[in-house]
Amino acid sequence: MTAEDLAQACAATMWADDHASRGLGMKLDHVAPHEARLSMLVTQAMVNGHGSCHGGFLFALADSAFAFACNTTNMRHVAAHCSVSYLQPARLGERLHATANLRAKVGRSGIYDVSIATEAGAIIAEFRGQSRSTGSTFFEPTS
Amino acid sequence: MTAEDLAQACAATMWADDHASRGLGMKLDHVAPHEARLSMLVTQAMVNGHGSCHGGFLFALADSAFAFACNTTNMRHVAAHCSVSYLQPARLGERLHATANLRAKVGRSGIYDVSIATEAGAIIAEFRGQSRSTGSTFFEPTS
Amino acid sequence: MTAEDLAQACAATMWADDHASRGLGMKLDHVAPHEARLSMLVTQAMVNGHGSCHGGFLFALADSAFAFACNTTNMRHVAAHCSVSYLQPARLGERLHATANLRAKVGRSGIYDVSIATEAGAIIAEFRGQSRSTGSTFFEPTS
Amino acid sequence: MTAEDLAQACAATMWADDHASRGLGMKLDHVAPHEARLSMLVTQAMVNGHGSCHGGFLFALADSAFAFACNTTNMRHVAAHCSVSYLQPARLGERLHATANLRAKVGRSGIYDVSIATEAGAIIAEFRGQSRSTGSTFFEPTS
Repeated sequence: MTAEDLAQACAATMWADDHASRGLGMKLDHVAPHEARLSMLVTQAMVNGHGSCHGGFLFALADSAFAFACNTTNMRHVAAHCSVSYLQPARLGERLHATANLRAKVGRSGIYDVSIATEAGAIIAEFRGQSRSTGSTFFEPTS
Repeated sequence: MTAEDLAQACAATMWADDHASRGLGMKLDHVAPHEARLSMLVTQAMVNGHGSCHGGFLFALADSAFAFACNTTNMRHVAAHCSVSYLQPARLGERLHATANLRAKVGRSGIYDVSIATEAGAIIAEFRGQSRSTGSTFFEPTS
Repeated sequence: MTAEDLAQACAATMWADDHASRGLGMKLDHVAPHEARLSMLVTQAMVNGHGSCHGGFLFALADSAFAFACNTTNMRHVAAHCSVSYLQPARLGERLHATANLRAKVGRSGIYDVSIATEAGAIIAEFRGQSRSTGSTFFEPTS
Repeated sequence: MTAEDLAQACAATMWADDHASRGLGMKLDHVAPHEARLSMLVTQAMVNGHGSCHGGFLFALADSAFAFACNTTNMRHVAAHCSVSYLQPARLGERLHATANLRAKVGRSGIYDVSIATEAGAIIAEFRGQSRSTGSTFFEPTS
């Protein structure tokens, strides 16, 4: 099993269980070792009266991208701390893309960065997540 | 108009527009100058396969409490930066309470802290938000 | 040994070793279980050409207050993550006071908040630190 | 004047005023538009009794790298919010390298990431800073 196959297998296991991300209409567009790309449409249910997306949904999209990126090696990781900077509003009807990459990994801790951008490439928010290994696996490693 | 009345009026204006918070089933339990308390039930749509709440929904609850707390003086404020530490999982069926209070206010910037706890008082997450005044108001101040 | 005595004993052990805090001229003004207060004078060596204190020294003061507050129970804790919001500049010759308090504690993780203020009470910065128990102690518990 | 020359000129102006960074023995190893690299030796004055560097000095190094990187276009920027994750201890006698790069820039806000690593490339800490333009310049733009 290659590292890419393993990343795909972890993502498939997580995705099957992830009512939340699917319920928000997220799509899992790309997974590879320590990286993930998800997208989501800003719907009426996500906006306030001015048509701009509630920060919680931006965060949820980034948090899901982080979760898929930090769980690609068959070791389960959880979020210890996350932060987000909002740079400009996202609007009703826009499709947002969250791209998560590994920044650093030392021992059981990892730092992942996620950018949220529009189709046109405008940066909406920058997210950083710190993960911690739980010590358990998604499935039995096959030889 | 007292400060308490003003806080209520701001909250009423925001709540009417806030499809997102209402769509997630949040309740606005308390608003006063620079403070707010909201609650939310963890539903099936918010959990992963292990029955624990997706971090994005915890964040959304905290973010809404922050938004209501930092918008109680008729000056519109937006979030510049938010961070959250996850301390323990929240479970399907639990009602969560987010309590937001002002920590510090200097010039156009404010720091608000939000605790998310279960009915039994177990702390699920600690959130901190930094707000910035936009310079605009919710409604014409009445004399 | 009371909880207060234990906090004092932990602080004395740490302080003896803490060349860094002493070298910056910090004073340990108060220690009690899960809280600490330190002060520091903004010296010429800490400022830039405009007479305002370099953020690194503000951070160091807050970080020390955090360290003393989260190490008051004979269990050694280390910082996992820290964040700081700068609210206004501190000036050459000002004495700054950092007050650290426990915000939440769950399992091996703690959240501590530190305010840095001038003598006159103006808030300079707000700091939040997340600690993690190392599992080791400062000294043998005496019965 | 090229963008590189402008970055060098801004850095020279800041460095001349920066008693703090120079007093800590930092070296400004590289500056270019929106990036900077500084180094610092961990001295006895920076360590606790166990020979590991106080977090405040790690933060100061990262904060200086952030400051030089976000001030390379003749517009003065200040730090609004900074966070740091400590990944492993730095030891007495080690030379640390802080590398700051632009992550995103929208309007008056910028996000910069700084890694602190040893000579051997071990990651000690990851820092993220959010900058904000003050609207003023370092010197008169020359035509």
